[in-house]
Amino acid sequence: MAEERCAIGIDLGGTNLRWAVVDATGERRYQDRIDRPHSLAEIVGAIHQGVRACRERFPNVVGAGIAVPGIVQNGIVTSHNLGWQDVPLAPALADLEVPATLLNDMAAGAVGELDFGRARGCRNVIFVTISTGIGAGIILGGDVYRGANGLAGEVGHMVVDLNGLLCGCGRRGCWEMIASGTAHRRRIREAYTSGTWPNLDHEPTPAEVTERAREGDRAARALVLRTARYLGIGVSNLANLYDPQAVIFTGGFARNTWDIIHDYLLNEVREQAFSQNVRLLLTELGDDAGVMGAAAIALRQ
Amino acid sequence: MAEERCAIGIDLGGTNLRWAVVDATGERRYQDRIDRPHSLAEIVGAIHQGVRACRERFPNVVGAGIAVPGIVQNGIVTSHNLGWQDVPLAPALADLEVPATLLNDMAAGAVGELDFGRARGCRNVIFVTISTGIGAGIILGGDVYRGANGLAGEVGHMVVDLNGLLCGCGRRGCWEMIASGTAHRRRIREAYTSGTWPNLDHEPTPAEVTERAREGDRAARALVLRTARYLGIGVSNLANLYDPQAVIFTGGFARNTWDIIHDYLLNEVREQAFSQNVRLLLTELGDDAGVMGAAAIALRQ
Repeated sequence: MAEERCAIGIDLGGTNLRWAVVDATGERRYQDRIDRPHSLAEIVGAIHQGVRACRERFPNVVGAGIAVPGIVQNGIVTSHNLGWQDVPLAPALADLEVPATLLNDMAAGAVGELDFGRARGCRNVIFVTISTGIGAGIILGGDVYRGANGLAGEVGHMVVDLNGLLCGCGRRGCWEMIASGTAHRRRIREAYTSGTWPNLDHEPTPAEVTERAREGDRAARALVLRTARYLGIGVSNLANLYDPQAVIFTGGFARNTWDIIHDYLLNEVREQAFSQNVRLLLTELGDDAGVMGAAAIALRQ
Repeated sequence: MAEERCAIGIDLGGTNLRWAVVDATGERRYQDRIDRPHSLAEIVGAIHQGVRACRERFPNVVGAGIAVPGIVQNGIVTSHNLGWQDVPLAPALADLEVPATLLNDMAAGAVGELDFGRARGCRNVIFVTISTGIGAGIILGGDVYRGANGLAGEVGHMVVDLNGLLCGCGRRGCWEMIASGTAHRRRIREAYTSGTWPNLDHEPTPAEVTERAREGDRAARALVLRTARYLGIGVSNLANLYDPQAVIFTGGFARNTWDIIHDYLLNEVREQAFSQNVRLLLTELGDDAGVMGAAAIALRQ
């Protein structure tokens, strides 16, 4: 059997440090995860150890991509999730045994879906995560678009409701204040405490609300579609600004409700955006988008 | 004297058809304009004639760029301003004596400022026109970004106020409904009719309001800064999405009020956007941005 080119994808998350060895066809040859260490020195040590273990099993590894939950600028990382401000991660990894590329985790997810997932064949794609907040990885012309300072794609902090709720960023009416998983959960709580489900002895989780919506509970369905409506406003804005071929969704809300929201959301976007061609797709790689994209970036070098 | 490379820039506007011969340093060697003919055949005829006249004087012309006020997709133009739906302009110009490139007029303006104007040396620039509506040309990585369908940059139809005024596009609270020259004029009218300037015998023009603001009229100044505040919300969104090095402004409102609004607008954007580096600049080429950018595109080929 010929030795195929492969690369190591590393996803440095809030909870786990994950890695995978991925070949050029997108097949995972190996994967593992550990609890994310806390200090920079421990993280760097764990990455070194992981890369060494991978190279022992796969000598044909050509490089490593490392996805981080924050802003990467010239190898320096600032990450709210990791509690990092201007941490020189690239210099700390300079003596890694293979060439390493750092990138933002949303950008990695976008590359993962582009090279190995739902967005194969696309050139212009927005990869949107609907989670605690809303983040995005932007692919334009087949490559990650980072912007002048590595800050492109802060889509959650696009104001869509200028008199709306005050966001942690200081602005009012940021998209994530109405369309994130957090906003959805807030509206579920409001519905529950105002007596929407009198026979229920606890505040339903978003997954329970989705299940109720599937079973025909009108209040639950209205809550899900309300979040979808707010998603539609922001996605239509993105369509009018970036004119992508596709928007790929991930994160809890999208993944839990996709069967309910897809047609509704597509209709909203078709009505609101100039482009009538944009496709709305659900992640194919799920939680692996980041680690796969990190490997893909290394394979692209 | 050595014969320098030069190109013809043509700007097909709502009112005029303008052309200029521009050399690689951005110097205009020749320029002219006529009233815009109405039919496609007449426009094509005028372009042929203009190109022929330019080539007689400048045999070293390498090509022509043609800026049109609409969407260009594979040489087919759709333009509300010209009343065109899917008009095959590129095929109609196939036998032009020099290679011709069609592009949207906002994109042309952006390229003009990039190659010969205020944005020299930038890689990522948004060129925003504040006029009847709000439009933009997008430069990413040094090139025009068109999107998958030539629709990128419809920034005027970014919703920023989801419960706001109904826009002609069918959405509520589009940016141009509050931050365009039209919106500014509407608020001037409201101020006038509600008795803001009891000694004035006519509704003041925007230019008069600007002049009054300069002279210390507080109501006039508040009107100008209110439009600037709404501009700031949209510009901050653009900064969070595209992370450009600069936003270049043109159009009546920006050009008439720049001395009043610049510091205020910059402060708004610094407070609202993640990037603290984005520069806000006024057009250098003014009404010539389109024709200069059309020539620049031809010189780039």
